[in-house]
Amino acid sequence: MATATASSELITKAQAARAASRELRTLSAERKNAGLRAVADALEANLPAVLEANARDMDAGRDAGLSEALLGRLLLNEQRVRAMANDARNVALLPDPVGERFDARTLPSGVRVERRRVPLGVIGCVYESRPNVTTDIAALCLKSGNAVVLRGGKEAVHSNAAIVALMRQALEEADAAPEAVQFVTDTDRAVVDQMIRLNDYFDMFIPRGGEALIRYVRDNATVPAITGGVGVVHIYVDASANAEMASEIVFNAKTQRPDVCNALDTMLVHSAAAPSFLPGAASRLAAAGVEMRCDQRALSLIGPAPEALVHAAAPGDFGQEFLALTMSVKVVDSLDEAMEHIEAHGSGHTEAIVTEDYSAATRFTDEVEASVVLVNASTRYNDGGRLGLGAEVAISTNKLHARGPMGLRELTSYKWVALGDGQTPA
Amino acid sequence: MATATASSELITKAQAARAASRELRTLSAERKNAGLRAVADALEANLPAVLEANARDMDAGRDAGLSEALLGRLLLNEQRVRAMANDARNVALLPDPVGERFDARTLPSGVRVERRRVPLGVIGCVYESRPNVTTDIAALCLKSGNAVVLRGGKEAVHSNAAIVALMRQALEEADAAPEAVQFVTDTDRAVVDQMIRLNDYFDMFIPRGGEALIRYVRDNATVPAITGGVGVVHIYVDASANAEMASEIVFNAKTQRPDVCNALDTMLVHSAAAPSFLPGAASRLAAAGVEMRCDQRALSLIGPAPEALVHAAAPGDFGQEFLALTMSVKVVDSLDEAMEHIEAHGSGHTEAIVTEDYSAATRFTDEVEASVVLVNASTRYNDGGRLGLGAEVAISTNKLHARGPMGLRELTSYKWVALGDGQTPA
Repeated sequence: MATATASSELITKAQAARAASRELRTLSAERKNAGLRAVADALEANLPAVLEANARDMDAGRDAGLSEALLGRLLLNEQRVRAMANDARNVALLPDPVGERFDARTLPSGVRVERRRVPLGVIGCVYESRPNVTTDIAALCLKSGNAVVLRGGKEAVHSNAAIVALMRQALEEADAAPEAVQFVTDTDRAVVDQMIRLNDYFDMFIPRGGEALIRYVRDNATVPAITGGVGVVHIYVDASANAEMASEIVFNAKTQRPDVCNALDTMLVHSAAAPSFLPGAASRLAAAGVEMRCDQRALSLIGPAPEALVHAAAPGDFGQEFLALTMSVKVVDSLDEAMEHIEAHGSGHTEAIVTEDYSAATRFTDEVEASVVLVNASTRYNDGGRLGLGAEVAISTNKLHARGPMGLRELTSYKWVALGDGQTPA
Repeated sequence: MATATASSELITKAQAARAASRELRTLSAERKNAGLRAVADALEANLPAVLEANARDMDAGRDAGLSEALLGRLLLNEQRVRAMANDARNVALLPDPVGERFDARTLPSGVRVERRRVPLGVIGCVYESRPNVTTDIAALCLKSGNAVVLRGGKEAVHSNAAIVALMRQALEEADAAPEAVQFVTDTDRAVVDQMIRLNDYFDMFIPRGGEALIRYVRDNATVPAITGGVGVVHIYVDASANAEMASEIVFNAKTQRPDVCNALDTMLVHSAAAPSFLPGAASRLAAAGVEMRCDQRALSLIGPAPEALVHAAAPGDFGQEFLALTMSVKVVDSLDEAMEHIEAHGSGHTEAIVTEDYSAATRFTDEVEASVVLVNASTRYNDGGRLGLGAEVAISTNKLHARGPMGLRELTSYKWVALGDGQTPA
């Protein structure tokens, strides 16, 4: 029963999105930007209604015994709603990728060809508890000319419904394709199963959630899906590293925001640098509350001082994404050993080397395969904003279509346009 | 039983390909090109062995009652083998896409970032009877730094085995990653089912075959798959069209090579142009043996002369890919009606307008969604060679990753490389 209902709501909304995508694909940047500003204004003008809807979700969440962490992600307050509005305004300020022309050339036959960026069409997105994802994804899809079918977490159902109603009304008043934003209210898990297989309706699917969701989508979706988000992140401190720089980069990568995918998981240290580098770096990390799971050589060098936080690593501690103030540490004897370890245990997300050695830097960037490979900079730079994309819909560890942070351009396709004056090939 | 055997051969070869892809991704263009030239030389030096293996396939095919068309595709002769060798040499002459750097910039923090093209990794390809696809796909994969697992049709099993053995030996002698070309000999259909779901081994899957194979892959593959190849191709002859140019383009698009995906299927003619244009154009097409399935208005205009080839269209004749000297013809009353027809019946492959009207040309290129949209040129230009890509592995009607003809660049991914001097974001 639930499945039948889910199916009909999903398909109705997917059809509406597809119809709206035809209107949206030729909507001018001016009109799309006006729509985004109207959404921002509507969020601020209707702050009490949004907060009231969110309060219902928070009450229900407390009754259901949601964890404090989950409630923290679910919560909206004035500051967060204003941030959502400002994010929508910022998307309006970004250049419109649609219509961008590239690889233009005149062929020997005289036919003038170019590739021209076009929207993908309809994007499906399933996400979890944060209600700000609703405006965030919708704004990026709208700006890139894509219709979107959103399916949020059941904890946030009232918040999301209120936000979507506001957005659609604002887009309608701004004459900016309100039907391009569709929200599926059915929270049955079967809806996700259907979405990821509706190739006739969806051009791309974005799962925003934990590892289990992403793995499920990767293994079962026939709609092309962006499956990133799981980062098993290494920093290799080379024999030639500037120890102070290495300590600073490791500290930033591990402690600035430990619960995100570009945070450090495993530090590899060359055995020639380890005796002088490890004790100081570890004591700084320990002072910030970082638990270190060390191989035998690292353990023997770090010494007894911060012992409550320093343990022997189990094999599972290498190749693990911690998302917490926990990391693993290993001493290696060469750049090759470090790269072998990364090849075996990395997730292709973010990998860094700290080195003063030109050849080591060159080999590391040439040979290590990841969405972002860094020399002498924090892994926290794997971020759309920080890499200059202006916004980010996801970080892809796919190799097809887009890799690393995905901004507006990565939400587009292209078509070839060929202009002739009667050419027919021989 | 068959499945168990298939599985183990496939997995063993996929693992070998993955291991080889690590070597291949940093192999220099010089070495890859030497490998390609060695393959070409080996094909020519071993011509008798290749022709002998092919003769076995031809005998078996005749015994099995294969159609003349299928036997024609299966046949190798000296000319075809020399063409295969020359194609491999031509791929060696193309620029290497691997290592190409783009979007390079210095961020405000001083971090220098760029995107750098890298191979995808391992590509799976299933194809049907033409043995030249074996060298064709292998050469393009090798040049773009990708390992490949090939699975050809069972009719061509001896030809393919002989060709692959030659290729691998030539690559070995040229020290150019011979294990990067793997060929699965098991012709059980279950092998395809497994390949399209082995996400841990394959980065991309290319089906080269008929509509049934492509549809099956599209609906069932979890490995990202390039599913193009089905072209329901329209030419719209606008009211303002130069009639002679339109006739020339239509004739070329329909008759030059009717059995390929960029050949014309449906001609739409504006009602203002139809009376003067259709009779002459139709009589030229009829003289070349083209069967025309016409709507009532077109039928009444074309007149009795070539009547054996002119029939009333059935509804299924619109939206059909004919792959033969057959086409459908319809009179429309406006550009909008033509574009609606294309939206409803096209496959997003190749669409063309013939017009002298600036606004009609602009609207058509802006609003029609297809991998290649043309003004006043033959649909036969949707081709990697003709659009300047140098080679073509497939024509994609996907919107993700690559659309239209796919050359070497479309067989690559990219990674971000970020070079700092100690930066940590605030």
